Amino acid sequence: MEFPSKLIEEAVTEVAKLPGIGKKTALRLVLHLIKEHESKTQALAQALVRLRENIRFCKNCHTISDEDECTICRSHRRDRSVICVVEESKDVMAIENTAQYNGLYHVLGGVISPMHGIGPSELKIDSLLARLGRMSGEAREIILALSPTLEGDTTAFYVNKKLAPLSLRVTAIARGVAVGGELEYTDEITLGRSISARVLFH
Amino acid sequence: MEFPSKLIEEAVTEVAKLPGIGKKTALRLVLHLIKEHESKTQALAQALVRLRENIRFCKNCHTISDEDECTICRSHRRDRSVICVVEESKDVMAIENTAQYNGLYHVLGGVISPMHGIGPSELKIDSLLARLGRMSGEAREIILALSPTLEGDTTAFYVNKKLAPLSLRVTAIARGVAVGGELEYTDEITLGRSISARVLFH
Repeated sequence: MEFPSKLIEEAVTEVAKLPGIGKKTALRLVLHLIKEHESKTQALAQALVRLRENIRFCKNCHTISDEDECTICRSHRRDRSVICVVEESKDVMAIENTAQYNGLYHVLGGVISPMHGIGPSELKIDSLLARLGRMSGEAREIILALSPTLEGDTTAFYVNKKLAPLSLRVTAIARGVAVGGELEYTDEITLGRSISARVLFH
Repeated sequence: MEFPSKLIEEAVTEVAKLPGIGKKTALRLVLHLIKEHESKTQALAQALVRLRENIRFCKNCHTISDEDECTICRSHRRDRSVICVVEESKDVMAIENTAQYNGLYHVLGGVISPMHGIGPSELKIDSLLARLGRMSGEAREIILALSPTLEGDTTAFYVNKKLAPLSLRVTAIARGVAVGGELEYTDEITLGRSISARVLFH
């Protein structure tokens, strides 16, 4: 693609580095900014830089936070006896949006993936064990809420093994058919598991 | 959607103001920036602000440019006897990418659209007439390359009427382009053919 302006070309190149944004979409976004008032572009740029420069990660659970300790860890209304282990901060947001959980979190920062050179030491697993030590028995259940993939399962097994010496209840989020989905469109493995892992109908 | 951080919320709000970007996509982009090095975000923000602050519009043809006069108007290799009238700078880029045209351009800045309160005086039509006067007969053909929509047609008729007193050949790009579509989304071959197969504007 030829650009009539170096400035446009540079901006399109930068925007197109974002995931899922191609050159055509980047150009559309950039031309939109040119049409809008200058202050709009400044507000966007400032919000991004301010975020990137000031963002912190909670010293306990490693979720994205504005402070040293996140609002969930600081809250007195959260159930401190349960810790939900997730891969990323966005998983914390997803679970918070369900309004079905009132415990604490622990963000591993990924899953074990030898293909991508990520071993257990790259994840916040030791941090979880140290945190449980600091909490001296306050936490009684660990919920493993990792992706239902090979890497997620591997990580769940590894974390579970590490937790074994501690007298904790270790659970995993339920796997089965999606609510609102249709049985005939559910994949065979999920449907098979949902049958073998059936629960009492109350 | 609940955010664990005010900084995230502000950034997502700003990004989601861009056309075609919803809150979920904005969050994905913002979380990507947090994972990347700080310098990446700064490069993005700087490119956008630098673009918005320094962008100019060519004094002759009103296309986006880095200077007072665009590279096309300054070029000695362009055919100055033909001027292609388009709605937006992105249309100039689209036509340039076909490599089927070697003349000059004139960007109207939109089309006549009473629905959106855009009349002929909001467009660079008088500017085109003045420019033709300054060129004192050098331009001999005007190609109308406007969107094949009601507004585009209305604008084409209006411009043609204004050009009538001048002894110019007025043509319109061939209707190979899909009716109701937009120039920037037309594939290069179709767009290129529509220029080379232009017909006399009645």
